[in-house]
Amino acid sequence: MTDENFIKKVREQDKKTVSRAITLIESSNGSANQLLKSLHKFTGNAYRIGITGPPGAGKSTLTNQLTRYYRRLNKTVGIIAVDPTSPFSGGALLGDRIRMSDIGSDPGVFIRSMATRGSLGGLSKKAVEAADLLDAAQYDIIIFETVGVGQSELDIAKAADTTVVVLVPESGDSIQAMKAGLMEIADIFVINKSDRQGVDATYTALTTILHLYNRKEVVPEVIKTVASENKGIEELAVEIEKHRKSLIESNLLESNRMNKLKERILENLNYLINEEISGIIETSLIHELAELTLEGKLSYVEASELLLNKYKQKLLGK
Amino acid sequence: MTDENFIKKVREQDKKTVSRAITLIESSNGSANQLLKSLHKFTGNAYRIGITGPPGAGKSTLTNQLTRYYRRLNKTVGIIAVDPTSPFSGGALLGDRIRMSDIGSDPGVFIRSMATRGSLGGLSKKAVEAADLLDAAQYDIIIFETVGVGQSELDIAKAADTTVVVLVPESGDSIQAMKAGLMEIADIFVINKSDRQGVDATYTALTTILHLYNRKEVVPEVIKTVASENKGIEELAVEIEKHRKSLIESNLLESNRMNKLKERILENLNYLINEEISGIIETSLIHELAELTLEGKLSYVEASELLLNKYKQKLLGK
Repeated sequence: MTDENFIKKVREQDKKTVSRAITLIESSNGSANQLLKSLHKFTGNAYRIGITGPPGAGKSTLTNQLTRYYRRLNKTVGIIAVDPTSPFSGGALLGDRIRMSDIGSDPGVFIRSMATRGSLGGLSKKAVEAADLLDAAQYDIIIFETVGVGQSELDIAKAADTTVVVLVPESGDSIQAMKAGLMEIADIFVINKSDRQGVDATYTALTTILHLYNRKEVVPEVIKTVASENKGIEELAVEIEKHRKSLIESNLLESNRMNKLKERILENLNYLINEEISGIIETSLIHELAELTLEGKLSYVEASELLLNKYKQKLLGK
Repeated sequence: MTDENFIKKVREQDKKTVSRAITLIESSNGSANQLLKSLHKFTGNAYRIGITGPPGAGKSTLTNQLTRYYRRLNKTVGIIAVDPTSPFSGGALLGDRIRMSDIGSDPGVFIRSMATRGSLGGLSKKAVEAADLLDAAQYDIIIFETVGVGQSELDIAKAADTTVVVLVPESGDSIQAMKAGLMEIADIFVINKSDRQGVDATYTALTTILHLYNRKEVVPEVIKTVASENKGIEELAVEIEKHRKSLIESNLLESNRMNKLKERILENLNYLINEEISGIIETSLIHELAELTLEGKLSYVEASELLLNKYKQKLLGK
């Protein structure tokens, strides 16, 4: 799978090969690591956009329209949907899925949905690896579409160079609460479905809070869109481009990527150690310690300390 | 902090001491571990209920009413709110916070909000440790209130013996999408705000999907409530009690707790190793490797493999 011909086909955006390569990444075995190592030198050229927000905000429609916009500029687009409510990942109703199929059949667009079933922690690692692969496959733009409420989804959105947080007019009430999470990651806000009631109040609430609490160098812009009618999409794309340019001019693009890379390296270290541990430590020992803990003879902290010592002893060959 | 008098006061539900002890857990230093070790033998008696669902579903009001119900039965209640939109954790508007204050001043109720700011992964560990503490402090019922969308919040909800997923009549559209996440963790569903339009459609959609896709031994019950008017609360409490009894009769209470404990021990092992690594590996080395990776000379996988070797060498005293 890591032979030259396979890599050549990935680089040529051969959809079947790209798709097989991502499946390999999802299975996360040794050959996936080999592949990522071989492709690494080809990465770093794509621009990564994260689109996140609550369920029902219209993230997929927005992704769809934004993709069409980039296609008109002749840019190729790779989409990674890790959103259980996204029609890309098969979560939504049939109607939505059909609506999406036009970009899906475009040879310059690659769509991959990644399941949230199972460990989401692992998923964020794999989603970013899939983006690396699409990057090496020379897609110009990579879009992560995630439901932005949990930490793992935020992790994926944060892996982007520009993160767009999508809200709806009805989000007004929860904007106050949102301060804690979404605000820190948003470079641009979108109020989608802006033909609905409440848009002005939400816009005012959002801009006010942004001006009061913003901790970034630049206050994030707020764009109104009606994605289903293609309204505001160009404005959004222009704002993304403005953000990209400002990152480059301030040298933040590189330093942000550097910081994200450090986090990724440490996370992967963590992952490697976990793999080692599950190879080294017998499940019967874990069971035994858990039993002692349930019986009140050990605390769970002591149980894990015992396992750590076991791991070290094995490493030392004892 | 781990002296006998301190532990005695925790056991006596002295609110100030319990509060200080949780602050200690939040700071997660060595003395917190010491405290948890000393208190461990007193845990396992409280019944743990998780209340989760999307923002705005009325989880806090429901928690509030359920707490009042248990208080009328003379049971003491500890509440851990890890919900940025919860009035308990200060996310919501002032009105809500005042509405909650009556249970807050009850000597038989302990409310603690835990911030989602910072690492949510760490938070789920601390929330469960706080529950252990409240358990040792002899609270009869412990309620976790979390926003159930992200994985980490789900982790907290899963730490409960009975998990209640709260929806609203408007959730109808997203029930299809919900299959992926919330359904697997719910023991009981609540449709709150059931005086609103759409409740029948949502009830039908939910029960249909539950009967089609349920993989548990028993199909979860769906209860309609209007928490703000105290409607349906007793039914919910009865259903929770029924679930508790069925867990005990089928020996699942113990085996579920055992499985959760194993996960916790392994997670903590992970945490201990991370702490060790950050103590052992110089940040300058991480920086150097990240630079080589950005330059395309290493893949991030190779960078983390080099760190793993470094960690092992240090352990071996090289």
